[in-house]
Amino acid sequence: MAYSLNEICKRIQGRLEGDEAILIQGVNTLDSAGAAEITFAESDRYFDKVASGQAAAIVVAEDFPDVPGCNLVRVPNPRFSFMQIMEMFVAPVEMKGIHQKASISDTANLDKTVSIGACAVVADLANIGARTFIESGAYIGTDVIIGEDCYIGANAVLMKGIRVGDRVVIHAGATIGGEGFGFAWLKDHHHKVPQLGSVQIDDDVEIGCNSCVDRATMGITRIRRGTKIDNQVHIAHNNDIGEDVIIAGQFGSSGSVTIGNRAVFGGKSCIADHLSVGENAQVGGASVVIKNVEPGAVVFGMPAQSKRQTFQELAYIKRLPDLAKTVKAQEKELKRLQKQVASLVSKLPQD
Amino acid sequence: MAYSLNEICKRIQGRLEGDEAILIQGVNTLDSAGAAEITFAESDRYFDKVASGQAAAIVVAEDFPDVPGCNLVRVPNPRFSFMQIMEMFVAPVEMKGIHQKASISDTANLDKTVSIGACAVVADLANIGARTFIESGAYIGTDVIIGEDCYIGANAVLMKGIRVGDRVVIHAGATIGGEGFGFAWLKDHHHKVPQLGSVQIDDDVEIGCNSCVDRATMGITRIRRGTKIDNQVHIAHNNDIGEDVIIAGQFGSSGSVTIGNRAVFGGKSCIADHLSVGENAQVGGASVVIKNVEPGAVVFGMPAQSKRQTFQELAYIKRLPDLAKTVKAQEKELKRLQKQVASLVSKLPQD
Amino acid sequence: MAYSLNEICKRIQGRLEGDEAILIQGVNTLDSAGAAEITFAESDRYFDKVASGQAAAIVVAEDFPDVPGCNLVRVPNPRFSFMQIMEMFVAPVEMKGIHQKASISDTANLDKTVSIGACAVVADLANIGARTFIESGAYIGTDVIIGEDCYIGANAVLMKGIRVGDRVVIHAGATIGGEGFGFAWLKDHHHKVPQLGSVQIDDDVEIGCNSCVDRATMGITRIRRGTKIDNQVHIAHNNDIGEDVIIAGQFGSSGSVTIGNRAVFGGKSCIADHLSVGENAQVGGASVVIKNVEPGAVVFGMPAQSKRQTFQELAYIKRLPDLAKTVKAQEKELKRLQKQVASLVSKLPQD
Repeated sequence: MAYSLNEICKRIQGRLEGDEAILIQGVNTLDSAGAAEITFAESDRYFDKVASGQAAAIVVAEDFPDVPGCNLVRVPNPRFSFMQIMEMFVAPVEMKGIHQKASISDTANLDKTVSIGACAVVADLANIGARTFIESGAYIGTDVIIGEDCYIGANAVLMKGIRVGDRVVIHAGATIGGEGFGFAWLKDHHHKVPQLGSVQIDDDVEIGCNSCVDRATMGITRIRRGTKIDNQVHIAHNNDIGEDVIIAGQFGSSGSVTIGNRAVFGGKSCIADHLSVGENAQVGGASVVIKNVEPGAVVFGMPAQSKRQTFQELAYIKRLPDLAKTVKAQEKELKRLQKQVASLVSKLPQD
Repeated sequence: MAYSLNEICKRIQGRLEGDEAILIQGVNTLDSAGAAEITFAESDRYFDKVASGQAAAIVVAEDFPDVPGCNLVRVPNPRFSFMQIMEMFVAPVEMKGIHQKASISDTANLDKTVSIGACAVVADLANIGARTFIESGAYIGTDVIIGEDCYIGANAVLMKGIRVGDRVVIHAGATIGGEGFGFAWLKDHHHKVPQLGSVQIDDDVEIGCNSCVDRATMGITRIRRGTKIDNQVHIAHNNDIGEDVIIAGQFGSSGSVTIGNRAVFGGKSCIADHLSVGENAQVGGASVVIKNVEPGAVVFGMPAQSKRQTFQELAYIKRLPDLAKTVKAQEKELKRLQKQVASLVSKLPQD
Repeated sequence: MAYSLNEICKRIQGRLEGDEAILIQGVNTLDSAGAAEITFAESDRYFDKVASGQAAAIVVAEDFPDVPGCNLVRVPNPRFSFMQIMEMFVAPVEMKGIHQKASISDTANLDKTVSIGACAVVADLANIGARTFIESGAYIGTDVIIGEDCYIGANAVLMKGIRVGDRVVIHAGATIGGEGFGFAWLKDHHHKVPQLGSVQIDDDVEIGCNSCVDRATMGITRIRRGTKIDNQVHIAHNNDIGEDVIIAGQFGSSGSVTIGNRAVFGGKSCIADHLSVGENAQVGGASVVIKNVEPGAVVFGMPAQSKRQTFQELAYIKRLPDLAKTVKAQEKELKRLQKQVASLVSKLPQD
């Protein structure tokens, strides 16, 4: 893929200062961009890097200083325009049809535009929509329904009966539909509570590599429209994850958790069972949620509470040695005063 | 699968108030149960939901109030009886024999009742017992021995020489028998310590999706009878995990850890190397164990200690601003007193 | 595999006291070694175990006491010499060529000494070097380049365009090259930031089971020579991990993190985005790094800071109840003194 700088300028409606014919073969960071690559500078702070770099062209703000000898493309919002350029370089998914070493059940129902990689397995009665791509080694279980324009990564596993909407991406190694973790102690052993529910993943959801979403004990575990989930995340049985939620890597939830729309979870955060996190709430990285989080709240810590309070408490803890020293000094001073006062009392005439 | 309400009543020895002929096609939660589903109510608290719901029938306690128009099934313990009903709806594993796209070594020894899915691989000298089901894409390494009635999930990996008992469930994407993480620094590089041991998983153990159990450096990493392990758990080399232990999601252990029978680990908890946790101990979610835990102890925190103590300390930390304020006020008052006393001393006749 | 004790002695240049002809069939721990196994004792502390054990032979220090009836092999450093013996028992990887049920693209370029397991998939234009072993079910994506003497575990996934050096081990279920987790909020939805970069894994790196390494947004995510990574680790986009770094299980990084050479990360530790950890720094288990870590620093805690300071603070927290009690007692004493002083003042003649 390659574009003239002129083509790129047109796409982002930028104002070019420099050579419009130069051929751009890729994008890169300001530090690393080479002679055939375009990059961007977010502010004047990066002037020296722009001036000294090798990049074929640099996307900058309207008021960025002139840089003689550099091809500059001026736009109102360099970061956003650059993202548009990046999209020009995304390789289109090449649909390849059904690989002869894939294993497709006779009773599966595949749109004729579906692609399925080598050694992928599609079980009985599965239903796969138009333009969906199933990578090599992926497993699509019995009775699974997948919508249109989805991408299921290599060696991902979608177990029996899972429902997947349109434009869903499930990355490599993710397992969707494992049994919820439920046991009852009967006399002398843990007895498995049957896990009869399913998982429903709505449109435009993305689930990262090696993440797990467990099926519900009854009913469904649901991940709603537009939610984005990173790698190695664990979503437990009967969770209801709202729309446009962001969940960073290694997050873990317990059973029956409810998450409101647009909530954000930092990496490695987690939440105890049956709790809810409100809309637009933000849970900091590595935080441990053990009580409900209000809509819009910003929490952090182990256990999680108002981020401001956690950092205030951390500051107070840091001053503990001084506090202890002060108290000790006061103790000494108190004793000295006690003695002085006692001495004074003894010197005064008794009542 | 469907049962008349009468059949269900008989199975759980319940007392029916309502229509015994109605056909029950599934189970669901009290909130979601539809007109062909049975559900349960744990106590009177749920009376309104029972009265207003759509469920075909509701399992309730003996003393639950009457609900005109509802099919009630009365039992002493609704939750337990309902679990029995759930079990009536578990689909039996359908044994399918060896898929023609599975890859089975000529030297592997498979019971004739074994099922093996498409693109699963069974390596040389592996031994698989009666009625064991190997899902699609799973890998059974050289010399692995698996007992009877086991279930190995899709794309799970059991490496060379692993031993697995009867009725063991290893869910999709789990990897059993990876090399322990051991290196010695030799002059100028990390040198791998050979990992020559194995893993033994005893009867009735369950291991969740994408979990890892490492082989021992020497000897075996052992998971004993009846222990249940959730998703994305990491069990390190040379661990000895007792019987009937419960380990929730994303738990992680370090090398040479010993866990007593019936210990319970909350999600995302972890434990440092060479430590032991006693029988019946409970380690709270996200807790970080850095010293041994006594049998029966209940611990929580980072680092983990008595849960009561951790919460007491958290309460004291919360009062730190007040404590600091008090100390500051005392400081002021002390100064005032010092002045007053000094003034008094100066006014008294000298000794 | 079996060796006479004499052969073993020669290999480690040990001094034998006992039967040089005895056949050693394996290694084991001091507790478990049987009559055909060799073990080692690190110090005199283990004398009783050595004397009462069943081992065929024991590697001990030069000055270990005599043990009548035991075959002792004396060396300067028993642990190191024993590691050399362990290496004698590592089974060589048996190269098996290309399995007929593997799926290899016609445009892939494989050295003729490569081994590829059943149901492994090698996509278009992939390049695999001499003596590299690709286990069953692994996926090698389009345009991937793998060097010589590598081992790629069962069901591991190496996505499009990844670069892998020589002698690299990527264990089962690991996914390399997943898309970085980057989204921009556009009006009313999370818009994916294209992830156009790649991953480069240098020589002698090891990556554990079910770990994930994400591709860079632009440029590369890099793991440098000799670094060892345990299971279930998450390395995010645009990380630059130095040489000979040690990363224990369940570590997680955020985007654009830089790690210096020989840094060490304990299990379950994590680090926020755009931070750096200096050379030789040590981050304790379960620690949460939210600011840069200096070279050589030893940090621990949530959030991570100097390990000494964290443990000092924990000690102060433990003394909070006493401190609070002291302050309360002082308050009482202050009141008493105030009264006494006021009384004294009232008894003195006014100025």
